[in-house]
Amino acid sequence: MMQAPEVSVTGDRTAAVVAVGTELLGQSRVDTNSLEVAGVLARHGVRVVEKRVVGDDVDDIARAVRDLLGVAPIVVLCGGLGPTADDLTRVALARALGRELRHDVEIEAWLRERYRSLGRHMPEVCATMARVVEGSTPLLNSRGAAPGVLIEADERLVMALPGVPGELCEMLREHVEPELERRFPGASLVSRTLVLGGVLESEIEERIAHLYERHGREAVTILAAPGTVRLVLSAAGPREAAARRLELMVADYRAVLGDDVAGEDVSGLAEATLRLLTGAGQTLATAESCTGGLVSAWLTDVPGSSAAYVGGVVSYRNDVKESSVGVPGSLLVEHGAVSEPVARSMAEQVRRRLATDWGVGITGIAGPGGGTADKPVGLVHWAVAGPEGTWHQSRVFSGDRSVVRRWSASSALDLLRRQLQCRGGAAS
Amino acid sequence: MMQAPEVSVTGDRTAAVVAVGTELLGQSRVDTNSLEVAGVLARHGVRVVEKRVVGDDVDDIARAVRDLLGVAPIVVLCGGLGPTADDLTRVALARALGRELRHDVEIEAWLRERYRSLGRHMPEVCATMARVVEGSTPLLNSRGAAPGVLIEADERLVMALPGVPGELCEMLREHVEPELERRFPGASLVSRTLVLGGVLESEIEERIAHLYERHGREAVTILAAPGTVRLVLSAAGPREAAARRLELMVADYRAVLGDDVAGEDVSGLAEATLRLLTGAGQTLATAESCTGGLVSAWLTDVPGSSAAYVGGVVSYRNDVKESSVGVPGSLLVEHGAVSEPVARSMAEQVRRRLATDWGVGITGIAGPGGGTADKPVGLVHWAVAGPEGTWHQSRVFSGDRSVVRRWSASSALDLLRRQLQCRGGAAS
Repeated sequence: MMQAPEVSVTGDRTAAVVAVGTELLGQSRVDTNSLEVAGVLARHGVRVVEKRVVGDDVDDIARAVRDLLGVAPIVVLCGGLGPTADDLTRVALARALGRELRHDVEIEAWLRERYRSLGRHMPEVCATMARVVEGSTPLLNSRGAAPGVLIEADERLVMALPGVPGELCEMLREHVEPELERRFPGASLVSRTLVLGGVLESEIEERIAHLYERHGREAVTILAAPGTVRLVLSAAGPREAAARRLELMVADYRAVLGDDVAGEDVSGLAEATLRLLTGAGQTLATAESCTGGLVSAWLTDVPGSSAAYVGGVVSYRNDVKESSVGVPGSLLVEHGAVSEPVARSMAEQVRRRLATDWGVGITGIAGPGGGTADKPVGLVHWAVAGPEGTWHQSRVFSGDRSVVRRWSASSALDLLRRQLQCRGGAAS
Repeated sequence: MMQAPEVSVTGDRTAAVVAVGTELLGQSRVDTNSLEVAGVLARHGVRVVEKRVVGDDVDDIARAVRDLLGVAPIVVLCGGLGPTADDLTRVALARALGRELRHDVEIEAWLRERYRSLGRHMPEVCATMARVVEGSTPLLNSRGAAPGVLIEADERLVMALPGVPGELCEMLREHVEPELERRFPGASLVSRTLVLGGVLESEIEERIAHLYERHGREAVTILAAPGTVRLVLSAAGPREAAARRLELMVADYRAVLGDDVAGEDVSGLAEATLRLLTGAGQTLATAESCTGGLVSAWLTDVPGSSAAYVGGVVSYRNDVKESSVGVPGSLLVEHGAVSEPVARSMAEQVRRRLATDWGVGITGIAGPGGGTADKPVGLVHWAVAGPEGTWHQSRVFSGDRSVVRRWSASSALDLLRRQLQCRGGAAS
């Protein structure tokens, strides 16, 4: 869930990234390693100008390397460094650069020791990982076995890293970042993420468009999910100047966006809401119908959420709304389960029963079935009950079941965080 | 959540895919359109051998097209067909193929009509979408405005499709599938997904490796998530022969995997479990602590889940386990919240309180905080209470908070579905 902030790069330093693996050419897996690589490069002012995915084929990998050395001065490969027959990145690198592969006894000793320390005997096939491209620097892998490769050739830098995400990330931190820092010292790229709730991406773009001229279009990245928009602002340059520019930018954007900003540098509305609750020393309980536990799953995905989030009820069937939440049966009969009175009652009852400061109630029709002329698919009511009363909103969301559920969960959290922010503002 | 089954391609027909868009070179967005394209190609026996991502730059797009026409006879581009200044795919195609761009009055008339039918006036900038590469066939866009492009050149086929996923998918269905069917008639590719619970990917690979020889390694794709493994089996060829081969393959794999198969052609363990419950006409309630609503969110993400899933309680704090679930305070004091007796009691109490056939209880320490020497981070107890008694399991999961939570939720669903399958087997 947590996502590192996106940073923009404006300089002229460029790189290309190659993901190696036949499984990445099919219908279900995408290369996500390149996002991590792009992030590390961006922090050192290096912009990715091309990405490729090639299969486990020596010719294809070698061709990609040769091509891309003509496109950018830095080429990063991910994957194909393991011990099995389809791990061909080393062979392809040697072929692309016209170099020999030689067996390195030190690497082999390191590999054997690595297996021994895990209480295992090294399978003989793993000795292939001790083959080293002539003139390259092996990058030891502290999370796995397969060593990475760093090669300098004709003012070009080629790095090959393992495809296992945990190993890749550690190697980026341990080997690639220091190498970039050595080459491009003092570069700095700072960024801040504004999380907005209750807004549409298109509407936000219109409202902020006039700021592009002042701060640059490339300084802001907009990321949208149902009910949540993230604006990532970033500034590059010498450290202090970049930090100063970022502060100005954040101030300008906040002035335009006002109350729609739920938080800064949080993973989403759930974390923004939890921070406000924790800051106020208050607690929350939830009663969810159509969202079926999505709000509580989002809240509890945030480490430390138990400081403010107590728990809740998923009342997927009407009788549970009555028995476990305490919604009066008469309300359900009179107004139907998807109605303002029931949403209000859910929020109030779960707050009372779980003895919290705040309660959230959500009831709606996520679809695809269950809609009527009066109450169409996508109709959702949500309410927030707090120390000073209960607030209610409703909307007919369009989109499939999953989109309706995510919009509903976001909207309920957004109503709550607005009450919390508004109280915080009034109290301070 | 629902995922189309992966199909493998063994023939010699190949294609390359280019995603166009500077935003796909950053740190947060990956190209997922190519998965859809690869799926449609695979169903017609065409294998993707290379994918590229290039920015909104005429030279880069044109270079990719020229390069890839030397790599594969079919090249599909996604994105860059809109009306704005950074939509450059048309210009790049003309340049790569050495053809002219001309204004097409019929396309312009179609565009104007399209906007008028939406009650809007066409912005003049949109007339750029009526520019057509000489000798190409425009592909009309029934979901949006930007037309696609189909070009035949030197026995090569180049297609450019819009980058908006909804428009892309519709255009694949409307234009690309018929074109492929026309070129490669009678090809058929059938597949089946086996969803496995309670197993590790590496262990499954070992158990099925001997089947690769009989059915081909490329006929199976393994997709793993915490606590769930999906095996996608596929067979290509003339329709009936392919279907027959698939049935043989499924039978062989099922014979090896036995009880570990939770279901066929389902989105995951939640859907597999719901099908078993619905088939038996039985109901389920959940009491979740460390998973914080993840099980109920997964269950309710499946359309029609209300037929079997009644609801549940998220008891994130101890007092809620006592008050809302009904776990005796003495158990909590004596054994602690993360213990076998409490997991059992959660499952039994929620089953009793919500009057269902089955109850699930989960309690554990997801981390990163909260661990002790006796009860480390990752320790999780789960229990399933049913008509014939209560079953319990526990394990110390490794991985971060999110991984521990997903393993826990999967494991609890898996224990439940094993009970359901075993009862179903006994009863039949």
